[in-house]
Amino acid sequence: MAVTKPVISFWFEFASTYSYLTAMRIEALAESRGVGLKWRPFLLGPIFAAQGWTTSPFNIYPAKGSYMWRDLERQAELLSLPLAQPDPFPQNGLKAARIAEYLRQGEWCAPFVRAVFHAEFGEGRDISDPELLAAVLIDIGAPAKDVMTAVETQSVKDRLREAVGEAQGLGIFGAPSFVTEDGELFWGNDRLEQALDWAVRHHGD
Amino acid sequence: MAVTKPVISFWFEFASTYSYLTAMRIEALAESRGVGLKWRPFLLGPIFAAQGWTTSPFNIYPAKGSYMWRDLERQAELLSLPLAQPDPFPQNGLKAARIAEYLRQGEWCAPFVRAVFHAEFGEGRDISDPELLAAVLIDIGAPAKDVMTAVETQSVKDRLREAVGEAQGLGIFGAPSFVTEDGELFWGNDRLEQALDWAVRHHGD
Repeated sequence: MAVTKPVISFWFEFASTYSYLTAMRIEALAESRGVGLKWRPFLLGPIFAAQGWTTSPFNIYPAKGSYMWRDLERQAELLSLPLAQPDPFPQNGLKAARIAEYLRQGEWCAPFVRAVFHAEFGEGRDISDPELLAAVLIDIGAPAKDVMTAVETQSVKDRLREAVGEAQGLGIFGAPSFVTEDGELFWGNDRLEQALDWAVRHHGD
Repeated sequence: MAVTKPVISFWFEFASTYSYLTAMRIEALAESRGVGLKWRPFLLGPIFAAQGWTTSPFNIYPAKGSYMWRDLERQAELLSLPLAQPDPFPQNGLKAARIAEYLRQGEWCAPFVRAVFHAEFGEGRDISDPELLAAVLIDIGAPAKDVMTAVETQSVKDRLREAVGEAQGLGIFGAPSFVTEDGELFWGNDRLEQALDWAVRHHGD
C-alpha cells in the first residue's frame, strides 16, 4: 500500500497583497505539517470583472483600502517581512502568472514565486517588466531565455486561462485561497493554518 | 497615581455573522488579557449605502456569500457555537442596536447583546421582532417595558445615528471592528487577538 501525504492547492494572484504574506510562509508551514503543495497561479481580474469591478476592491472602496495597507504593515511586521507599496497598485501580474503556470510542476516554481513577490511587495518594484522577470529567472538558476520564449506560446496562455476557469469552478473569489483534496475552500492568509489542519484531518476520507 | 487598564472598543452590527462569533468570545478573552471593553453597537447599512450597496455584500457577491456561510459553519464548530441561518438575511437589527446603545454603559448590555446574537445566529430567529427583544430583556432581568419605551425617544435614535458617524470617522467599513485607545483599527473576528495584544502593548503610550 502506497503511503501518500495530504496535499493542498495554493491559489495565488501576483497582484494580491495577502498572497505575498502567504507565499513567504506556506512552504515551511506545510512541510512542518507533512502537507504537500500545489502552486496554482491564477488571475483575479476576470473574476472581479465578472462582478463588475475594473480594479482592486481596495481601490474601489477607499476605507477598506487604507485599512488593508495598515493591516498589511502590521502583518508584515509580525512575520518579519519587508514591505513596500508598488506603484501602480494593483500591479499587472499577467506575465509573471504565465511564467509561474509554465514552471508550476518543477523545482523553479516556488523560488520564482517568492522572488517575484519579494520584488513587488518587499521592494515595491514593477513586476510587469519582462526584464525584471528574466532577471529573477536567472537569479534562481532557471533557463531564463527559454522560459521567456515558452510563456509567449498559445498553449501557456491557454493553460493560465483554464486555471482561471478552474478557480471559478471551485468557488474562488479572492486570493490567496486554499483547496484541500476533498474540495474544501479556505480564503485568506488568515486561514492557512486551518486549511493545513483540514488537509491533514481529512486526508484519505 | 491611578492604575488604569487598557480598553478596546468593540464595534458590532447585529446583522453581521462574524460579529456573532466575536460577541460570544470577546468578554472572556478580554478579561484574561486584563483589557476592558466598550460595547459599541452601530449600523453598517448607512456605511454600505454610501458605497452603493443596498444589501449585504454576501448577497451581492454570491461566491463570497456561499463561502462565508461555509466558513462560518467551520468557525462556529471550532468555537463550539450553535449556528442557524436567519431568514431573511441580513436581519434588520435597528431596534436591537438602539437598545444596545441605550444600555451600553450599564450591566445589561453584554448579556443583551449575547442573547440577541444567540437568538439570531444560534436559533435563526427574527431579531427585528419587538416581542423577541422584550423577551430577551426580561430574561436578563432588565426592566423591559421601560427600556422598550426609552429606545423610541429621539435622543436614543440620535445617539445611534451619531455612533454610525463616529464609526465612519474612525475608518470603520465592516463588522466586527476593534479600536484601541491610540486609535488603531482592527477588522474582523480573526483580528481580535491582535487587537487585544495591541491594546496591552500600547496602553499609556
